[in-house]
Amino acid sequence: MINDKHDGRLEMLLNKDFLLKNNWAKKLYHGHAAHMPIIDYHCHLDPAEIYQNRKYNNLTQIWLYDNGFGDHYKWRLMRANGTPEKLITGNEVDPYSCFVEYVKAIEKAPGNPLFEWSHLELRRFFNIDLTINQKNANEIWKKANKLIVTEDFRAKRLIQRSNVRLICTTDDPVSDLRYQKLLHDEEKENGFKVLPTFRPENLMNIRQKGFPEYIKNLSDISGTLITNYKALCKAIAQRIEFFHKIGCRLADHSLNTFYFCPVDEEKMNRIIADALSGKQISCEQAEQYKSTIQLYLMELYKNNDWAMQLHINCFRDDSTKDFVTIGANAGFDSVGDQPDIVKQIKNLFDVADQKSILPKTIIYSLNSNDWLALASLAGSFQGAGVRQRIMFGNAWWFNDTLSGIRDQLTIFAQQGLLGNFIGMLTDSRSFLSYPRHEYFRRVLCELFGEWVDNGQLPEDEQYLGKIIEDICYNNAHDYFGFFAS
Amino acid sequence: MINDKHDGRLEMLLNKDFLLKNNWAKKLYHGHAAHMPIIDYHCHLDPAEIYQNRKYNNLTQIWLYDNGFGDHYKWRLMRANGTPEKLITGNEVDPYSCFVEYVKAIEKAPGNPLFEWSHLELRRFFNIDLTINQKNANEIWKKANKLIVTEDFRAKRLIQRSNVRLICTTDDPVSDLRYQKLLHDEEKENGFKVLPTFRPENLMNIRQKGFPEYIKNLSDISGTLITNYKALCKAIAQRIEFFHKIGCRLADHSLNTFYFCPVDEEKMNRIIADALSGKQISCEQAEQYKSTIQLYLMELYKNNDWAMQLHINCFRDDSTKDFVTIGANAGFDSVGDQPDIVKQIKNLFDVADQKSILPKTIIYSLNSNDWLALASLAGSFQGAGVRQRIMFGNAWWFNDTLSGIRDQLTIFAQQGLLGNFIGMLTDSRSFLSYPRHEYFRRVLCELFGEWVDNGQLPEDEQYLGKIIEDICYNNAHDYFGFFAS
Amino acid sequence: MINDKHDGRLEMLLNKDFLLKNNWAKKLYHGHAAHMPIIDYHCHLDPAEIYQNRKYNNLTQIWLYDNGFGDHYKWRLMRANGTPEKLITGNEVDPYSCFVEYVKAIEKAPGNPLFEWSHLELRRFFNIDLTINQKNANEIWKKANKLIVTEDFRAKRLIQRSNVRLICTTDDPVSDLRYQKLLHDEEKENGFKVLPTFRPENLMNIRQKGFPEYIKNLSDISGTLITNYKALCKAIAQRIEFFHKIGCRLADHSLNTFYFCPVDEEKMNRIIADALSGKQISCEQAEQYKSTIQLYLMELYKNNDWAMQLHINCFRDDSTKDFVTIGANAGFDSVGDQPDIVKQIKNLFDVADQKSILPKTIIYSLNSNDWLALASLAGSFQGAGVRQRIMFGNAWWFNDTLSGIRDQLTIFAQQGLLGNFIGMLTDSRSFLSYPRHEYFRRVLCELFGEWVDNGQLPEDEQYLGKIIEDICYNNAHDYFGFFAS
Repeated sequence: MINDKHDGRLEMLLNKDFLLKNNWAKKLYHGHAAHMPIIDYHCHLDPAEIYQNRKYNNLTQIWLYDNGFGDHYKWRLMRANGTPEKLITGNEVDPYSCFVEYVKAIEKAPGNPLFEWSHLELRRFFNIDLTINQKNANEIWKKANKLIVTEDFRAKRLIQRSNVRLICTTDDPVSDLRYQKLLHDEEKENGFKVLPTFRPENLMNIRQKGFPEYIKNLSDISGTLITNYKALCKAIAQRIEFFHKIGCRLADHSLNTFYFCPVDEEKMNRIIADALSGKQISCEQAEQYKSTIQLYLMELYKNNDWAMQLHINCFRDDSTKDFVTIGANAGFDSVGDQPDIVKQIKNLFDVADQKSILPKTIIYSLNSNDWLALASLAGSFQGAGVRQRIMFGNAWWFNDTLSGIRDQLTIFAQQGLLGNFIGMLTDSRSFLSYPRHEYFRRVLCELFGEWVDNGQLPEDEQYLGKIIEDICYNNAHDYFGFFAS
Repeated sequence: MINDKHDGRLEMLLNKDFLLKNNWAKKLYHGHAAHMPIIDYHCHLDPAEIYQNRKYNNLTQIWLYDNGFGDHYKWRLMRANGTPEKLITGNEVDPYSCFVEYVKAIEKAPGNPLFEWSHLELRRFFNIDLTINQKNANEIWKKANKLIVTEDFRAKRLIQRSNVRLICTTDDPVSDLRYQKLLHDEEKENGFKVLPTFRPENLMNIRQKGFPEYIKNLSDISGTLITNYKALCKAIAQRIEFFHKIGCRLADHSLNTFYFCPVDEEKMNRIIADALSGKQISCEQAEQYKSTIQLYLMELYKNNDWAMQLHINCFRDDSTKDFVTIGANAGFDSVGDQPDIVKQIKNLFDVADQKSILPKTIIYSLNSNDWLALASLAGSFQGAGVRQRIMFGNAWWFNDTLSGIRDQLTIFAQQGLLGNFIGMLTDSRSFLSYPRHEYFRRVLCELFGEWVDNGQLPEDEQYLGKIIEDICYNNAHDYFGFFAS
Repeated sequence: MINDKHDGRLEMLLNKDFLLKNNWAKKLYHGHAAHMPIIDYHCHLDPAEIYQNRKYNNLTQIWLYDNGFGDHYKWRLMRANGTPEKLITGNEVDPYSCFVEYVKAIEKAPGNPLFEWSHLELRRFFNIDLTINQKNANEIWKKANKLIVTEDFRAKRLIQRSNVRLICTTDDPVSDLRYQKLLHDEEKENGFKVLPTFRPENLMNIRQKGFPEYIKNLSDISGTLITNYKALCKAIAQRIEFFHKIGCRLADHSLNTFYFCPVDEEKMNRIIADALSGKQISCEQAEQYKSTIQLYLMELYKNNDWAMQLHINCFRDDSTKDFVTIGANAGFDSVGDQPDIVKQIKNLFDVADQKSILPKTIIYSLNSNDWLALASLAGSFQGAGVRQRIMFGNAWWFNDTLSGIRDQLTIFAQQGLLGNFIGMLTDSRSFLSYPRHEYFRRVLCELFGEWVDNGQLPEDEQYLGKIIEDICYNNAHDYFGFFAS
């Protein structure tokens, strides 16, 4: 997939060996990492768009903005360049103007992952090796748009061209998983699976507007009238059984902040009754509810041998003004700094472990300050016959950078068994984001190459190559059990 | 300005290419960074000393100790070497003994920025390339003192020789800015501007001894009798108008710790009345007062298009014993660890943003643990037509080191647009500290060189050279608007 | 001691120059660091095992598990590989199966310090340069076990072969230090000293089960009936006097968490009376007691010119389930994240400094987030005629890794005088762990080599070699005063 003809314009940028600085790194990347397929076990792709084989008209649509949605990573950069909001998320965004504003931002973005990702995407999918700048903007726009309307740029082809074997979407418990079912039927033809992930965010955020209506929907779809905790548990169990049947083996909890304080059934009944009757739920009650549901879900996951993802220490919707006018997931989130969040997670793990309901768990913190403590905490709850039962998850969101990935891998290796790591995911809403796996694999191989050069690892290609291949693909395959019959 | 004749004594130390390890780094530094002028937008130079064209008699006076004042960075090193306090800040410090004690400390200081800064200062200003050690101490002392009494070492010449175009001093709201006015008149002749910075530290620290007297002074100079919050606001507004007329476009808040809890006018009136009548103000009241004043000041800055600097997470005067006997700013401060300080700043930004009173802001934390969260927080409050309205400020004080500067640049780049960064400052009380800009620029160019080598940036000197020049000078020029007519 | 004949099997792994990437690093390591003796001022070796000249039967016994005890670092890795607990700490662990399980874990452990340490130990002590993997497992097992029963592998020989001059054990205040006394008598013959360290853990943890019995023991051994605070102080003072006579000059406080809130004698009397009468002590009372004892101990240390080690920010026994079934120190601890712990330490230092009872102090945090703040805090409490009176301690436990050691050295250098640093310790329960000193020294020399290459240090071997030797041995020798007559 790599094209290295530069017609004299670029020499180093994203060359064949970019990020690979020594021979072992190159040998491991080109000989072992590059050709491995992809299991993208965490992303935000829309299964309907996959099934309907989404097509695009221009680069702005696929990269920046399309009918209210778009890539908020890129929006942030444009705002940081002083671009007026009307050219970013405004109602009458002209696609070309929007693209040019992004180009201007990229020109100021050396060292930003979007600089590299955007160039990578142009090269890997479009075979365009022009530098993104105002001088080249028009040429890139024309070349890319000519290609983008072809069959090669429809959703399924983009997935196939990226050597993806499995995509896990992110789904609400009340989802009917209609598109996953339809995609299941054409799995052989497509050459990739699409499986749901159980994401109980709306279920757990009891203070969120619309919670009573949400519970109403959950009652309807589960066939259980939810009036108290027991009924809620029954409804949840029904949904998990349903998800399991469709092939789901993975949950995803967006905890943001976390204070572990579970309560008994009686208190849960009171909180639920209050919430359903429209009373204001206090922050303390909300945390009690969240902690109790958290434990109950873990029990179900454990029983079904699912893996659970925990995403912690995140501030959402920092700017109230922009949240009101533009909405959620629009580029106004940031890294959280909850004090003693690792201790809260420790308490959760400890209680779950005592009840023997601690499932396979992948824990991600948006604040890299937590990483060492989390990775070492994971080491206290291993065992149960599972390789690396508790995984310290990879460099997430604002940490998905060269140094972020290196640090995560280094800490994982120092505190656990990197040979068991399940590797990269995209966490993306875009069909063009698979080169992030390439990026990750290069960083991984460079690190191994440095370790060999340092005399920390043996010069044994068979051994090292196997570990690289495991981290790229085999470990995720085995850990989750998605492909088990 | 670089002299690289080493007469055989030194080969590598601070050589022409020190800190620059690849060709692109060298090309960018020597071709683009080295010759750019300096805007030193944050320092603690005394405008009187500039105007009066301060002269020095010996190296101890300019480096270490002069009539009660001196460089507390260096004092800390001497204390860490076991030097008795009487040889550091004692009343009868013999200049040569003091110098020798510092030399002994430097001998133990490999990897400490003072090791490099001190050698750099000797080389760049004095053309002395001797290693600082006990063997060379006497020779350095004699050579330097012979030069130091010449015109070339008076304050204005040191500034001119360092290619400085603008210095922002740090000034109390009650200052009459007398010396800035006088310096304004000789601007053409001097070749550099000296502008005030509005630093409302004494205004905001209501529990500080002498607060009522301070408010009395503020009443006098502003011509507004301050008895309540409204009058205080009026007095403050008058001072900001006055500062603005003298060319001030920048404020500096030394927040140290911060808990955001603004209150209404009535509560402010009560707190102010209590303070003025000499009653003890509680910690809670002090935070309420500070938060409310903070918001009011931001409104004024926004209206005047000033930039605001916030310095956070700092412990001051750690040692009560030494504070009592030696005083403030004497080398007894350290890096703070206030929990959830980033959340407090988020709340401040959010409220200000809702009121549309969020000015251009540069935020510095002394604790590098806060950097990732702060840099990503900045990304949630951009826009308003300003390039990088919220700047994640550079590596401050204890972080002003090789790795500190690298980390700050890397995080800035990953979370924002480094091409818009306003670059280095000295934060210093010394006329010899400008080589820190050289140091910063070398680290910057080395980083860019590595990115090119890694294949992360194009090999395009015109493009990269322009960005380097912008970070060194042009961005600060444009962001602050000091030179606008 | 280094053997570099690899009979073609290994080329890079742990070669003569491993971790050393430039000429200065090699020159400093081979010429200055390698041959320096070792002062292991903090370890958990059993003085009885030293005196009785412990012998071993196989590799599992010395490496992994021996009659209920063993290396919990290694146990964690095996658990992370899914090894069932019965093969790790089970009653009927078969030594060879246990070894093979460890080998399997090591195969998955690239980048983990145990990968390097285990290979280093095989090479340095056994002269076995095979890679640890399942293919080689049997050969390693046989070769090592043949050697392990020889005299060269008995405790004293292992110490002597490692060029160790001094070992500080870790001892409870009620210890009779019988073995240290016996070892004192054979010091000349052995060629190394064994001195106690005063570790008042059981004394300070008032909520611990068995506290009244502990105080009873303390009463007995000190000859002071402890019924109140004054008597407790007297008993403690007696123990410190006793330890001092046996040569002790060092204490070690395992604080884990810390909240500084000392109380007066009356309150202490009440807390002690409650505890001795078996009443439940509240968390708050426990912290008050701990803080007050902490200050009293510091006074005694200061008077005796001892050094005090503080170990902070550690979670112990994370898994209640495993603590109950397997016990303490079994691999279920992790990095703590107590908010504002540095502030608590600052308050402790400040009060002690005001009372002039701040002894030489070495402070270690398990959470590297605290390092910058701690290292800078140390800089605020220097002086008193001692070189680096407050030491920022080295990379502890989960940080005892390549990057951990580099970071600790870098931060120490930037915030203090690295030339005064007392260097490495093993913190180990094993006689085979001395190669960690080699590892540390290589990282140290590599760092210095990089600084020379960067132009940050002069190319002066006499100067740099002396500093390296000081950090390896001389500084610890001088700082502690163990060898003073």
